[in-house]
Amino acid sequence: MDRAVQRGRVAGVVGGLTKKGAATRERIVAGAASLLRERGVDEVSLDDIRGATATSKSQLFHYFPDGRAQLLLAVAQYEAQEVLLDQQPQLDALGPPGSWAAWRDVVVDRYERQGTRCPMSALTRRLAPSHPEVGPVVAILLTTWQQKIEDGLRRAGVGEPRTKAMIILAALQGGVALLLATGDSTALRVALDQALDGLI
Amino acid sequence: MDRAVQRGRVAGVVGGLTKKGAATRERIVAGAASLLRERGVDEVSLDDIRGATATSKSQLFHYFPDGRAQLLLAVAQYEAQEVLLDQQPQLDALGPPGSWAAWRDVVVDRYERQGTRCPMSALTRRLAPSHPEVGPVVAILLTTWQQKIEDGLRRAGVGEPRTKAMIILAALQGGVALLLATGDSTALRVALDQALDGLI
Repeated sequence: MDRAVQRGRVAGVVGGLTKKGAATRERIVAGAASLLRERGVDEVSLDDIRGATATSKSQLFHYFPDGRAQLLLAVAQYEAQEVLLDQQPQLDALGPPGSWAAWRDVVVDRYERQGTRCPMSALTRRLAPSHPEVGPVVAILLTTWQQKIEDGLRRAGVGEPRTKAMIILAALQGGVALLLATGDSTALRVALDQALDGLI
Repeated sequence: MDRAVQRGRVAGVVGGLTKKGAATRERIVAGAASLLRERGVDEVSLDDIRGATATSKSQLFHYFPDGRAQLLLAVAQYEAQEVLLDQQPQLDALGPPGSWAAWRDVVVDRYERQGTRCPMSALTRRLAPSHPEVGPVVAILLTTWQQKIEDGLRRAGVGEPRTKAMIILAALQGGVALLLATGDSTALRVALDQALDGLI
């Protein structure tokens, strides 16, 4: 399945827009996300985003009438979806033998390539002080992530799948926090392997 | 030992100040930290801090010539020390039977009381986009924390103490990240207990 189509299914929230309108909005958000990843949140103006996405001022206002913060929040939602999509199809395939090691490899590789620059973390840092709406975006991402791990554990017939899913996600989150702070992925590797003990 | 004395020993970095000067600076930073905890980083002005700490404009300028961001960075350093001091004396006593459960209880209690408001995280969120100096403050906190856990594991005679310390700190950090995002401490409890398996 095409990633844009997957993303539409994941999101399913662009209410009140025509199909063409939703596609235009998606194009602006994806372009903005790409620019923010390259340059950092504070180095990108609305004019830069207009330029990079070939969007007019009135178009941008049409989709984001509340301005820059509203667009940044849409980018945060987009990046939250990317976090999960980057783990696919391995995340949804968790369960059988071999599936856990395959997912672990994809996760470690993603965060090692990303290094100390996490778009999701940069956006929430920037938005959180003034825009509490970003809180639920992070909470929904974590809840969805945990549920998908739990579903895999159920398919694998593991006991206490809810608790075990929390342990795995906490190890992953903590490992990523240490990677972001220190640039070293060793903690992510060893913590995730420890949490997946018995599965890989 | 008095906490202010402990903090002075932990810090030991207020170069070029007399003993009285260091005490005044410490009083301003502690007062600012307390005000920021109460109201949130964005709701506190330099004038508020002057008022709460009975400091004159020229005094504040003397200790923090670069202004608000410099003072916020000093508060971040202060809060980083608080994170470790809040785990004492249990953190430095890690090793013997019973010490791991005692430390776990202190850590879980601290983060449950704190809930979804983490002063350290709020400050680094606020400062990180424009003040990269906050990065090393977080990195040093995490490295010191991990080293103290590793020292405890060595005293307990545990194999691979460095790897095991990473696993424990990652579980703790990930559990706290999930608590901050969702308000639920279950992940912190189960992840930390799992990482401490065999020690408690």
